[in-house]
This record gives sequence, structure tokens and C-alpha cells, in this order.
Amino acid sequence: MAPHPVEEYIPAGTWAFVEDKFTPFGKETLAKVVDFMNTEVYPALRVVDAQLPADPVQRWKTEIPIIEELKKKAKAKGLWNLFLSKAHYPEFGVPLTNLEYAVIAEILGRGMQTASEALNCSAPDTGNMEVFARYGTPEQQKTWLRPLLDGKIRSAFAMTERFVASSDARNIKTSIRQEGDQIVINGHKWWISGAGDPRTRVHLVMGLSDPTNKNEYLRQSIVIVPADAPGVKIIRPMQVFGYDDAPEGHCEIIYENVRVPASNIIAGWGRGFEVIQGRLGPGRIHHCMRSVGIASRALDLMIERVTDPTRKTFGKTLAEHGTIVADIAKSRAEIDAARWLVLSAAAKIDSHKAKGALKEIGMAKFVVPSMALTVVDRAMQAHGAEGVCQDTFLARAYAGLRTLRFADGPDEVHQQQIGQRELKRADEVKKRSADIKKKEAALFQKNGIKAHL
Amino acid sequence: MAPHPVEEYIPAGTWAFVEDKFTPFGKETLAKVVDFMNTEVYPALRVVDAQLPADPVQRWKTEIPIIEELKKKAKAKGLWNLFLSKAHYPEFGVPLTNLEYAVIAEILGRGMQTASEALNCSAPDTGNMEVFARYGTPEQQKTWLRPLLDGKIRSAFAMTERFVASSDARNIKTSIRQEGDQIVINGHKWWISGAGDPRTRVHLVMGLSDPTNKNEYLRQSIVIVPADAPGVKIIRPMQVFGYDDAPEGHCEIIYENVRVPASNIIAGWGRGFEVIQGRLGPGRIHHCMRSVGIASRALDLMIERVTDPTRKTFGKTLAEHGTIVADIAKSRAEIDAARWLVLSAAAKIDSHKAKGALKEIGMAKFVVPSMALTVVDRAMQAHGAEGVCQDTFLARAYAGLRTLRFADGPDEVHQQQIGQRELKRADEVKKRSADIKKKEAALFQKNGIKAHL
Amino acid sequence: MAPHPVEEYIPAGTWAFVEDKFTPFGKETLAKVVDFMNTEVYPALRVVDAQLPADPVQRWKTEIPIIEELKKKAKAKGLWNLFLSKAHYPEFGVPLTNLEYAVIAEILGRGMQTASEALNCSAPDTGNMEVFARYGTPEQQKTWLRPLLDGKIRSAFAMTERFVASSDARNIKTSIRQEGDQIVINGHKWWISGAGDPRTRVHLVMGLSDPTNKNEYLRQSIVIVPADAPGVKIIRPMQVFGYDDAPEGHCEIIYENVRVPASNIIAGWGRGFEVIQGRLGPGRIHHCMRSVGIASRALDLMIERVTDPTRKTFGKTLAEHGTIVADIAKSRAEIDAARWLVLSAAAKIDSHKAKGALKEIGMAKFVVPSMALTVVDRAMQAHGAEGVCQDTFLARAYAGLRTLRFADGPDEVHQQQIGQRELKRADEVKKRSADIKKKEAALFQKNGIKAHL
Amino acid sequence: MAPHPVEEYIPAGTWAFVEDKFTPFGKETLAKVVDFMNTEVYPALRVVDAQLPADPVQRWKTEIPIIEELKKKAKAKGLWNLFLSKAHYPEFGVPLTNLEYAVIAEILGRGMQTASEALNCSAPDTGNMEVFARYGTPEQQKTWLRPLLDGKIRSAFAMTERFVASSDARNIKTSIRQEGDQIVINGHKWWISGAGDPRTRVHLVMGLSDPTNKNEYLRQSIVIVPADAPGVKIIRPMQVFGYDDAPEGHCEIIYENVRVPASNIIAGWGRGFEVIQGRLGPGRIHHCMRSVGIASRALDLMIERVTDPTRKTFGKTLAEHGTIVADIAKSRAEIDAARWLVLSAAAKIDSHKAKGALKEIGMAKFVVPSMALTVVDRAMQAHGAEGVCQDTFLARAYAGLRTLRFADGPDEVHQQQIGQRELKRADEVKKRSADIKKKEAALFQKNGIKAHL
Repeated sequence: MAPHPVEEYIPAGTWAFVEDKFTPFGKETLAKVVDFMNTEVYPALRVVDAQLPADPVQRWKTEIPIIEELKKKAKAKGLWNLFLSKAHYPEFGVPLTNLEYAVIAEILGRGMQTASEALNCSAPDTGNMEVFARYGTPEQQKTWLRPLLDGKIRSAFAMTERFVASSDARNIKTSIRQEGDQIVINGHKWWISGAGDPRTRVHLVMGLSDPTNKNEYLRQSIVIVPADAPGVKIIRPMQVFGYDDAPEGHCEIIYENVRVPASNIIAGWGRGFEVIQGRLGPGRIHHCMRSVGIASRALDLMIERVTDPTRKTFGKTLAEHGTIVADIAKSRAEIDAARWLVLSAAAKIDSHKAKGALKEIGMAKFVVPSMALTVVDRAMQAHGAEGVCQDTFLARAYAGLRTLRFADGPDEVHQQQIGQRELKRADEVKKRSADIKKKEAALFQKNGIKAHL
Repeated sequence: MAPHPVEEYIPAGTWAFVEDKFTPFGKETLAKVVDFMNTEVYPALRVVDAQLPADPVQRWKTEIPIIEELKKKAKAKGLWNLFLSKAHYPEFGVPLTNLEYAVIAEILGRGMQTASEALNCSAPDTGNMEVFARYGTPEQQKTWLRPLLDGKIRSAFAMTERFVASSDARNIKTSIRQEGDQIVINGHKWWISGAGDPRTRVHLVMGLSDPTNKNEYLRQSIVIVPADAPGVKIIRPMQVFGYDDAPEGHCEIIYENVRVPASNIIAGWGRGFEVIQGRLGPGRIHHCMRSVGIASRALDLMIERVTDPTRKTFGKTLAEHGTIVADIAKSRAEIDAARWLVLSAAAKIDSHKAKGALKEIGMAKFVVPSMALTVVDRAMQAHGAEGVCQDTFLARAYAGLRTLRFADGPDEVHQQQIGQRELKRADEVKKRSADIKKKEAALFQKNGIKAHL
Repeated sequence: MAPHPVEEYIPAGTWAFVEDKFTPFGKETLAKVVDFMNTEVYPALRVVDAQLPADPVQRWKTEIPIIEELKKKAKAKGLWNLFLSKAHYPEFGVPLTNLEYAVIAEILGRGMQTASEALNCSAPDTGNMEVFARYGTPEQQKTWLRPLLDGKIRSAFAMTERFVASSDARNIKTSIRQEGDQIVINGHKWWISGAGDPRTRVHLVMGLSDPTNKNEYLRQSIVIVPADAPGVKIIRPMQVFGYDDAPEGHCEIIYENVRVPASNIIAGWGRGFEVIQGRLGPGRIHHCMRSVGIASRALDLMIERVTDPTRKTFGKTLAEHGTIVADIAKSRAEIDAARWLVLSAAAKIDSHKAKGALKEIGMAKFVVPSMALTVVDRAMQAHGAEGVCQDTFLARAYAGLRTLRFADGPDEVHQQQIGQRELKRADEVKKRSADIKKKEAALFQKNGIKAHL
Repeated sequence: MAPHPVEEYIPAGTWAFVEDKFTPFGKETLAKVVDFMNTEVYPALRVVDAQLPADPVQRWKTEIPIIEELKKKAKAKGLWNLFLSKAHYPEFGVPLTNLEYAVIAEILGRGMQTASEALNCSAPDTGNMEVFARYGTPEQQKTWLRPLLDGKIRSAFAMTERFVASSDARNIKTSIRQEGDQIVINGHKWWISGAGDPRTRVHLVMGLSDPTNKNEYLRQSIVIVPADAPGVKIIRPMQVFGYDDAPEGHCEIIYENVRVPASNIIAGWGRGFEVIQGRLGPGRIHHCMRSVGIASRALDLMIERVTDPTRKTFGKTLAEHGTIVADIAKSRAEIDAARWLVLSAAAKIDSHKAKGALKEIGMAKFVVPSMALTVVDRAMQAHGAEGVCQDTFLARAYAGLRTLRFADGPDEVHQQQIGQRELKRADEVKKRSADIKKKEAALFQKNGIKAHL
């Protein structure tokens, strides 16, 4: 049997375990994704850069033509909204498991933001579509979900706040209150990804709606805010390292007396926490898997560079110098090991829902970005100055990966949570030890051994 | 369906991928191994220590009673020679794949040397039995393989030489020459594991038999030497850190004019390299998998310790101090990720033979021991002085694991080999890049973009 | 005695060793630098950002007013050209040793590029002034050195080439040939720092002038090229992690049939290697010392952040979470240890010239940037998204520090060189061992010990 | 001027800073120590091993002849009790500063336990002599201090307890109570170093003497217990990675109704904490400095090994393989950087007493052992199996160094303490920031810049 095309990008040994869990549709879709990447996405990546204006105003007003072309082609091939699992969203979804999509996401990750966008699988739209699909009223779905699913519009999710430690969402201060049949929103957010995009038509805004509720987790609500509602003021784009990530961007926004109809509430008053919990889990895995893809592509680029005969110094290719070969071997092993953490987590989501896979998700979350940063950093080092500039994808990838070490919870928080979960095994471990001690004591007695205390 | 008992020791998420590849016999055997560990092996571990005499002479003359008891029990339950795959050794083997045995080996690894010995699965006997099974004449098999398979005797493999960089086996100097119908052996070996054991009856000795052969890889032969042959002089036991690992030990041995019948050759003159190549592959995976088991048990012990309420300092359990919880989370993730490298390698051996799995084996080989050392070291640190002494298994495990970073090839060599294998992908990667560049050029032209050089 | 003001920024314990080696002038100057930083430089840093236009054309045509003000103030206080040691440049220099300047450079490093520029101590002008001071003809000195020393103009050093592994300078291809009384230059350079600055009037261009000379190290020459000479074409600014570092920038430049008078040669034909050797040594230390300052400032910022009561999550300040305190302790120790490598190297340059301090310089060169990157990265992580954006100096510092791991020789090359130097000690070490073995043998005999082989 | 002999072992660049702070006596003594090491100690090291009986009983009853010879020689040369600073102990001490002794201790560290013992500078005697010198009554000094100073007897310090988290000394449970004119001691200690030695005549035992005192730090006392007092029961020697460190050993001891005269109290009732505080500081530095010496010697051994032409594999010396040279370079830099942390701490103790140097001592304490372990581990790896056995000092050194990561406070505790001390700088840092912000605001206004929020 011919090897599956994905074996160009992931090890046959890994695929051998995963293959059994793919449906024929899953395998076929994956093969089409690999082909689409090779024939359409990779060649387009530098076209995207070229079509984005340098002008600090114009770059925020531009729909990049090549991306719209890619979207059309992908849609025509059925490579569309693959992130949305039919098992969870029967009405809108695609018959792919999280595991199947995880492998697809790795392949997409190699094509950075462009690949995901081409297949209508890019954050924050993915999470927002899930929110609308799960919690939206028919009216909300018609107005917002449908055009999002069609790739006609884009969206933003406004949670993080300036001057507030909003990684603990209970600290969020943006005020959401009802006034008659309207909801009035006042708040100061930042790092609102996608808000800069001229195609973005809607923000989901999280805020404090019931500040005195005894249950801290019922104080927040999420409201639909049209991007062009009066009072939505985009202050500035935030930069990541020196990148503004136009046209999507990550914006600082002030919501000043923004008024929307009362019907724009998501899921109901006070259900903000519930909504974000569901939204975060699988998304984290998508990020992780894309990061594996980035690391894998960085390793390929490093291999290309260090074997380049025109790059000889002191009579040797880079590969013949010092520690390069060892770095490549380590990178290979680290990528392959980390990938398994993501695949295990994805499979666990399929079998136990995101809630039952928190440990696996958390481990992938704190391991993968650091792994990918290390691999990309080695590739940068092998490239010298070329590795940190606009001529390779490495520095930009590094910047993006770096944010994943704190986005959706910093590494340190995930480590604490996983560590605490492990500590919960203490009772079971101690019980086992006690059982063994008892049997050991019997053996000691039987064999006439005087136990040392 | 009830969870498989192995889920007490390996994550359900990992088991979910592996389970499909287990036969009912494999699952049942694994379950019996888990039970045997819990009921028989763990309680016996400190009995072994107690039954080993402290006297520097007597400790080398002792058959430890509890181990012989464990062997009887294991054999009675059919937990015997599980390392020997029927697929490769139809006459002698057990119907388990390498993957199935790999999981079993992890569980055995938790019980250190004792568990493996109880099931007649301990090195170097395992590799030696494979050699006899594959290359032995019927007579050799009757004399040596049968009692080895029965656990009646033990054996040694004499390769490493003092004063010689014998990790490059071409450097081996021990002289093997034929004189009439006898073979005469002269050489100076060390680190010959098992040679100290009173039950060891046979050494397989590798030496230079055809020093002028043009093909460097046909210069070496392997000869069967009875342990009590005249001229076999055990000089001293080597220590690993401060451990002598009695009664097996790792011995320095001088072979002085040792004479054996010419029929004692293995496989034929000049086939030494061929024999050791086959011998090393799967054994490396066994070591790796046992190392995962050791790391996993060390983490359990660490969890027990840091939650011990009697260990409070400054009013807090250790788990509540500083970086302990993060260390536990990292250990959990590192164990789970590294295990996959071994499982992937084991499955690859099943599908492609050891030769087709060299990359996977090599990655496991340089990743797992370091991982396990790190995890054990963290557990030692959490135990303070108790962690480095004879009262836990940690320091002894550390010493053993430390040797795996150079035994059967140092990490550095494996990294070089894996790195070089990755570099072989350079042509494929460059071809892909060239294809993309061509398509990119077309897109540039079509879109009126002037390529930057 | 009152503590010296520098103890605000470097540990008293370090200062205690260093103080003895400072002259009164050195101590006074250092004190003035500390004061100038606190009163003038720090408050100006964000003014610089604000005065730099966002427009992609204008930002390259702007002299930033606040920097010119700072320069005037610094010059008035005698804080000017402090990098230029009178011991090496009696005619132009300042009576400070390399060690004294190293401590000053750490303090300046805290103020990034702005501080160095304010005191006319910024690369590449510093190295270029040294070149003119050492090798310049009186005419060259009058035309170029004098205005550089006065801070009236800036300069560039054009060595790195595109499409060439120019870290081995023997690979440099730019053609330099004499035609009558003119020199004609043709070549393709990139990463030419400072070339974007409207104040830059001169480039020193290294190229191949005698390609067939048997001595590879006599094939290169360096030529003075006025920035506005016909044929000097600035292609584009290179970015470092998205930063263009305008207005200085790092430019890609094509020199196309550029013609300059034959008298524009530096030091004489074929002396290019000699010139760059001298140019690199102390400059590396300046970079290292500034990097220590950056790390030190990042640690201060981290301390400020993690103790900020408004940043509490889950009821605790960041400092009370997980591994933060340990990270701070490690950062403190790593900064203090690495600083010593730089100070030792600086002192060695003072006593043995740069050539006699290559080992010390090399060690500082590969240790300090990695250390600083680690410290800055921890500070970024503690800041979350704020740490990677334009609102702190961290991400920009990270990008700059990252280039130091390959600029002026990648870490790997320095490690190889230091390692090789250490290996030169082998003979001495072996001789010592042999002496000991002889004495040991005598003791063995005297004490009736039978040596083990 | 001829280089000082110490430059054979520490870098000239480091010595250049330190030299100024040495008296002529200090320099001369240091030179004599270097000579004594080279001519007497190194050749004796393997004699010590040979003279220690293998028999598990006899090895605890032996005075090793060569050590007694070395002691005589050292004493004759005035190389005796160098740890005891005259500045702190005018009556008994030697005119050396802590800094001077720190450099000496590094040199001694290269000779492991033997070198320190030869000069009567080995723990725990050193700390015990300081206790007697500072707190002893004339009678106590005559009975115990004098023979200790003369190297006639040895001693133990009994603090750590089994089953108790005694790294928080408030947890110590050993009961010390007065009965008439006697003190009665009951307790269960372990890891009591030196207690196994036949020359050990006295234990200093810390216990709970006033359990209800409101001030937790006044509840403990220290009592002098003759080693042969009835009721002192040595249970067993503890092992460190398999080493028993005979004859000194680290013993588990039960004190059962041990009675000593009431005059055997040290310093007075309830002053136990005060005594151990003073005892620990400088001793930590001694350990650290010796560890630097061990690392430095390991690096020498590694250099010797990797350049050994008889160790070629695949046609290359080890130094020509993979990452070895880089490992050597890193080791060199790490040793040189870490040494400075110890020297800075030693100098701080000289100028500010141990109490004023807690931060510096703590940093050295958590940095140096890990550094030394890393360097020794690299040397072990380069040696393969020979590196972990009894034929080099490496594995034994590793075991000893490993205990320093928790002895006298685990790394984690020191990191917490240093981190907390750094956090105390928060107010100062914030004040500085506030000052800068004010000046910045003025500049913004003056320059017409609208501050971003």
C-alpha cells in the first residue's frame, strides 16, 4: 500500500498508531490538505507579504487578494471549516474527530496564519463560531454564524483588559448593564486579535454584568457587539516583538457607552464563564498542533541551510561544524515526542470531552510552545542574521509562539494545575505503598529478617 | 468496560492508542504482570537486599533465595521469557510483539533488576538467548540455550575491553585463533555484566579472529567459553558509583590461553559483527522502557514524599514549597512524551525489523535515559539525604540509569547518527523548496510582484 | 565612606573588587554616568519613541531632537567618547581603562541604544573611530574622525555580504580594485548598521582587493566610501524580529561601480584582516557589558511587576505564585556571575591587549548574550502580553540581544575556539599526571601496595 | 614578575583581581599549598584507597597510615588549621582572611577529603572547632578544642534526625533535659558525619531543651557528648550512592539515656540556634570553593581523556567528535563564572561578617554544586564506563557534590531566600520608576507629546 501523503510531514511510526483511528473521509481530507499546502499555500506565502501595504494606515484597510483566492479554492475542494466537529455540532460541523483535525492542524501550522485562514480555520473565528453554534439563538446564528461559516466576515473576542490581571477572568471590569431593552457596555480591552481587520464585523465582549453575585463565576456575561457600533474605539494596534500582524492585528479598544439590543446576550446573563470554559479547551490543542507544524517546518529549513554548499565557512558546511548535527537530532526527537502529547490530548477530547482531558490539554499546552521555540531558535541560530529578519518565517514564528507561553494561561499556571492533579494521586499511591509494606512485613517475618526500624 | 489494570501505571490516553495493537493474549499477560508486580515483586525488593551478604567475598557466592522463589512463581503463571518474540523465534518464543513486550518491560522496570530476573527477562541473558536461538547449533542450543530458557543458569557477554576504545568494536583486540580443533582465547575485558554470578556458566566472548581481513567487519568472531574454563580469571568487580551490583556484578576478566573446542564458534568465523548488530537493537528498547518505568516509580515516590504531612518545614508540606509542584508537572509530561518515543520504536521494530527502526531506536536511546535521570534526580532532591542513601531505590536507580547514557553507544554517537539521518532528508526538502519557488515565481508574475532578488 | 552611586546598579561585593582598580577620575566619571542616566536618559527613552515618525519613509529622514539634546548635555558634562582609551589612543582618548569603561558600559546598556548614542559611544561609530584613530592618515582623520569624535556625523562598517557565508571573512566577494588614481568598488552587502541614518556620511567597506594573493589573509582591503557617493544604493532596511531600528537601521546595500580616490584606502592594500581583528575585540566586550546592563534592568522591571498589588490573580501577587521567586533568584545569580566574565576580560585587555585576552573575551561573548536572553525572557513571561509589546523595553531588548548570539561570530564558533584553547592545556595536564603517577608509584612501592595494573 | 603558582589552577585573570587582597603571608601560604598538593597529596590519593580495608567491619576501625603521614608533613610546613581566621579567633587562628582561605580551599578541594584532612581543615571538625573556639569554656577548650586543633582527635555534629524534617531545625525532637548536675539526652539522629571514625571522641548534639519556650528559636541547646559515653549507639552507616565514606562515614545514631555533666552545655541553655547560625555560614563557602576545585580537576581529567590518542573511535579522538569541544568550553566558562560568586561571598564575609553576606553565600550555595555536578557529569560521559567506576575520582565526587544540593539547606530554600531578598528591592525600584515617570511627564509636556494613557 502506498504511504499516506502525510508521511511527508509526520513520521511513519507516529502515523502507524494514528491511522487506525482515522475514517476514510479523515484520511482523504488529510491527503487533500497536504496537497493543497504543497500546491497552493506555500507558493502564496510571500505573495501575502507583498500584497500587504507598508503604509501604517493602508495596511489596516486591505483585504489581501491572494488570501481570498485561496479561500475560494479551499472551499471548492471541501477543505472548509474542518475545525468544527460534526460530533459536537451536528448541524454545522464536518465529520472529523479532534484527533483527525489535530493532524490536519499540524499540517496547516506549517503555513502559518495564511493556511488556517484559507481553510476558514483561524482563531479567533474558530472559537467564536463554536460559541455561536452552541449558544447562539437562530437569529444570532443567521446574522453572525452563517457569514462566519461562509468566510464572508471575521470576528473578535474581547476578553483581556488593560490595567487588570485578566488571566484571572474574575478580575475583568468592563461594565455590562441592561438599560431598558438595551445593553450598555463600557470598558478598556487590549490584545483583541482580529479587531483590526476590515472584514471583522462583530466582537464578542466579556464583562462584569452582576458584580455582587455571591457566586463569582456567575458575575460575567458575553455580549455581541457589531464592530461598527458607535462607541467602539480602536486605540492602537499592539505589537508582538516588532510585528503588528496587520490586517488582523491585536488591538487596544475602548468601549464607550456602546449600546446594543438586549437580545445580543450570549447564552444568557451570567453565563460568561461557562461559555469561555468550553471555548478554550480544543482551541489550545489547535494552537499546540500548529506549533508542532511550525517546529517541523523550521527543522526542514535548518536542514536545508546547514547542507547548503554555498554556506561553507572554514571549508565546511554548517552541518560539519560543532554542535549542529546534535541540535538537529534533538530537535527531531523533541518534535516527535511533543507531538504525542497533543495527539493524546486530542484523542482524549474525543473520548472524554474537553473537560475530561484537562490534564492532557494542560501538558501539551506548557510543553509544546517551549519545544517549538527551542527548535525555531536553533534554526535561527543556524541561519545567522538571515534567521531573524523578514526573509525567513523564523523570527515571525518565534514571536507568535512566544505569546503562546502565556496566552490562554501562562505555562506556570498550567504546571501548577497539572502538578496539583498529580498530587491528587497521592492517596492511591500511599495506599499501594501501604499494601506493599504489609506484604513486605510478612515476607520479612517469614524469612527471619529483622526490619531496620 | 473496566479499565485495564495497566492504567494504574501508564496514562489511559496512551493505553487508548496502544490497546488496539494488543492481542487478547497480550492484554491478559500484561494484566498478569501488573498483578505479579503488585503482589509478589514489590514486597520482595527489600528482602533481596537483606538476603545479600555484606561480606565482600560471600556476596559473590550467593543465590538469593527470594529471587529463586519469585522465578518459580512467575514461571508457574506463564510469565516467563516474555522478551522472546515468537514472530522472530518460532521455536522458543512467546506470542508477544515488541510493542506488547515494551509495555510489559516498563512495568518490570519499576521493580528494577529483581522483576526482570524473576521473569527470566534480564540482561545480558536476554540478548544471549537471542543469539543462541538465532545462531546456535542444535548442540549449542541443547547445552546452553535450554538451561538459560529454563532459568537454571545465567550467562555473560564479553565485549568491552580495558585500555581500548571498544565502543568502536573494530578496536577490539582479544585474540581468537584456531589451533587444531581448539580455539585459543587471550584478552583483557572489563565491565562484563553477570560474570560475577555463581549461577553464570557461560561467556560469549568477542575477539579478533582474522585481523588482516580486508573487510573490517569480518575480522571479529564470537566464541562460547564455559565460565569455569581454565584461564578465565576474574580480576575484580567494577563499581558503578559505589555499587558493585553483586552477585551479578560487572567484572574485569583476563582470558589467558583459554581453550575451547572449535565447535564453540557462534555462527561461524568472522561473523561477530553480524551477531552483535542483531543483538543490540531490541535490547536498547528494553533498557529504555524499563527506564520509563523507573522514572514513573520515582515520580510516584516523589508524590508520596511531598504530600507527607510529617515532612512539613516552616509550616508547609514540601508540595507547598517553591518549585516542587512545577517539577512534578514537568516530570509527568516528560515521562509521557518520552514513553511514546519508545513505543513508536517498538512498533517500528514489529513492522520493519530492528534494522528498519534504527532512527526510532536511536532517538529513544538518547532521550529516555536523560529524561529518567532528570526525574529521578528531582525525586532525590525532594527526599534530601534519604534520597541518596540505601533507604530508597533512587540513588541506585540513578547509578544504573547513568550508565545507559554511554552503554551500547554514548548519547553523542546516537545524536550524530540521528542527525546524519535527518540530513539525508536534505535532498527531498530542497526539491520541495524548489517546486514551491517555481510556483511562487509564477504567482509573483501573475500578480505583478517584483521579487526581491 | 558613602557607597559609590554605582552600587545602585551593581552589587557592592563586585564593586569591592573592582574599585581598587579605578582611578579617582574613573570613579568620578562613573558616578556622573549613573547620575546622567537617572536624571536625563531614562526619562527620555519614551520621548525618543514618540519623536520617531511611524511613516515608513519619514522615519529614515529624521534626526530625533531629544537625542541631540542629550548629546549636548553629555558633552558638556565631559561624558563623551568614554569608550576611547587614552592608553591606546593618546591623541584622542579619555583616561579610562577598558575595565573602567566596561562598568560604565553596563550602566549605559540599561538605557539601550539611546544612552550610548547620547555619550557618543554607540556602535558602529566606536569601532570606526578606533580604526580612523589607529590607521587613519592625518587627512582622513581630519575629514572623518574629527566630526565623528564631535558627534556631528555617523558612520557604517560594511562587511557582511548577502549570499555569502561572510562570517568567514575570507569568503567576502565585494570587488575592490584600483583604476588609475581611483578605487572602484562593486559588491552586495547587507546588515550594514547605521547606514540608514540621515547623519551617516561615511562607510568603511571591506572587499577583495588581491584575490590571488597566496596568503589568504592579505587578500582583503578596507576603503572609505562617502555615504553619498554615486553608486551607493540602499536597497532596503533589514528587520530584526519586526523591528527596523530606524533611523540607524541595518541596510542591504549595493555598491555599483562606486569610485573613490586611491587615498581612501585604510592602512594600505591588503590590510583588511589586520584592521578588523583589532576592531572586534573590545567591541565585543562593550556589547557584553551593555547586555549585562539590559539583563539587570529587566530583572528590576520583573521585580516591580511581580510585586504589583494590582496584578493579583487568584488572590496572590505574581511573586507568590509558583516558580517566580526562584526565577528571580536564578536571574540575580546568573547576572552577577556572568558580569565577572566580562570584567575579567576587560581587565585582561588592559594588561595583555585584546590579543592576549581572546579566551576571556570569547567566554564572555558566548555566555553573556544567552544569559541576558534568559533573564529578559523570564521578565517577559512575568509580564504576559505586556512583555512582548511596545510598552516595555523587553521584547525589543530580546531582539537585539538575540543578534549577539551570532554577530561577530556565532556562539558555536566561540565555543569551538575556547574549547580548542583549553585542549592546548592537554600537554601540561598530562605532564602533571605523569609526575604524579611517578610519585604515586614510589609511594605504592614504599607502602607495599600492589598497583592494580 | 613570575606568575604565582596558583595560576596553574585558577585563571590569571581571576588571580589578578584577587591578588591585591592577599597579604604576603597569604600569597606564600597559598604557594605552599599548591606545592604540597602537587608533591604530597595527589600521589597519595590512591594510597588512601588501598590502605582502607574492604572488610565491612575493619574499614571502620582503621587509621589510614598515609593520612597521618600527610598530617605530620603539612603541620611541619605550617599548613595547618588554615580555615581558622585570626581575625575572628585571635587566640587560635591563622592570619588569613576568608577570601584567602577560599582560594586555598579550592586548591584543597581538588584533593577531595584527603587534602582537607591532611591540613586539619575537614568538616565537620572545622565547624566544631569554631564552636569551641567561640563558645567553649576554658575547660571545654582544653579538653576538646586543643586536641582537635592538634589533629589528635576528630569530632561529629549531631543535628539531622530521622523521621523528622530537620532542615527546619525547629522540628528537632531529641530530648535534652537537666537532671540534677547531669544532662540526659535521648534522640534518634542520622547522617552524622565523622561519627564512624575511630579517632572521633566527641559529638556536639543538638536537641530540644525548652520545648515550651514562647520563642521558638530559644528552645534548642547543644551539648557535648563523649563518643564513648554509655547509650551512644551507632546503628549503621548511611550510604551515598553506594559509598559509605569509611572510616568517617555518615552514621545513624541513637542516643539512649546518655548522661553527661551539666557543664557540657555549649554557650548556655537555649542558645542552640545562635550557635548553628554562626557555624553554617563560612562552612558553606568552604564546601562551595572545594566544589569549584573538584569541577576544575574534572575538567583537567576530561581534557586528558579526550586528547588521548589511544582512545580513538572511528578514526578520531574524542575531542574531534560531536559536542565534546563545546562541552569543554562551557565547562571552562561555568567554572570561572561560578568561582566569582564564591570569591565575592568570601570577601563580603571579610568585610561584613557572615550575617552581612547571606545573599552572596546563598547564591554561591545554590549555583556552585549544580555547576560542579554538570562539569563532573560531562567528564564522566567522556570517560564512559571508566568515569562511573572506582578508577577515577569522578563518580565519588559526583556523589559527594550531589549531597551539597540539599545539605545545609536545599537549593530550593536558598533560591526562595535570595528571591525574597531581591523582592525587598521592590520599593527602591518603584521609587526610581516613579521619579523617572515624573521627569518623563515633564519631557512629554515640554515636547508636546501626548502620553498614551
